Amino acid sequence: MTHPPVRRFKDFRWDDTSLLAYRQEAGVPFKDVTRQILFEAPDLLGELRYFEVAAQGFSSLERHDHRHAVVILRGHGRCLVGDSVYDVGPLDLVDIPPMTWHQFKASQGEPLGFLCLVNVERDKAQLPSETDLAEMRGNPVIDGFLG
Amino acid sequence: MTHPPVRRFKDFRWDDTSLLAYRQEAGVPFKDVTRQILFEAPDLLGELRYFEVAAQGFSSLERHDHRHAVVILRGHGRCLVGDSVYDVGPLDLVDIPPMTWHQFKASQGEPLGFLCLVNVERDKAQLPSETDLAEMRGNPVIDGFLG
Repeated sequence: MTHPPVRRFKDFRWDDTSLLAYRQEAGVPFKDVTRQILFEAPDLLGELRYFEVAAQGFSSLERHDHRHAVVILRGHGRCLVGDSVYDVGPLDLVDIPPMTWHQFKASQGEPLGFLCLVNVERDKAQLPSETDLAEMRGNPVIDGFLG
Repeated sequence: MTHPPVRRFKDFRWDDTSLLAYRQEAGVPFKDVTRQILFEAPDLLGELRYFEVAAQGFSSLERHDHRHAVVILRGHGRCLVGDSVYDVGPLDLVDIPPMTWHQFKASQGEPLGFLCLVNVERDKAQLPSETDLAEMRGNPVIDGFLG
């Protein structure tokens, strides 16, 4: 543990907690997302991160074998989970099951910030192929969301 | 998964999420605490719960081999972590390492609500013996907190 037992919150930053890039891999489309790892420890099998998508930004459209357990902390936006689109706001819960296409989009006027719990041991995200995208866009709900 | 992908938040309750008793075992001192399990799934190695301690209430004084990763969601209060007492407020993080005595107390005027991440597989809490308590009270900081 490299931080004290209590870390203070201020303006959606935490003491002794680094502000990180959202994703290192090249070629993954996303817009204006930051990441802070709030809890990771050798004896903890879950990892809790805080992501913040700036107003009008979006996370990458992806799926993977691991589950995402999300708690919205600030702002409003929409999220795609499989075939459905949901409006989300503060403290709503979003459960993204394995191998389910998902994406978060922030509303026009404010950042969308959320906690995301994952297993420490997890697979890498998969991005949609052209075929996957065409299939998704065949669903008017998803097509409307992707824009 | 017995709930939909998105569960709405309202007044510190969530749709399709049961309000549970804090603790089943008899003889454990605590006061006015409720529990909601926000995320538990067979493929998730962490479990995310929301605890709420009513104004002037407190969680049990305990320790265990598993780590607690806490995010305060509402209210103010104080917590004991080992030999130290901290004031806590919304979105502060509290990291409770293994085998560390800890307790949360809500302030006078408002409930103290917090998320707590633990491993699904974990040991039971240990309560202080008379000897443990006497030793703790030998430290004026802890003695003042225990009241």
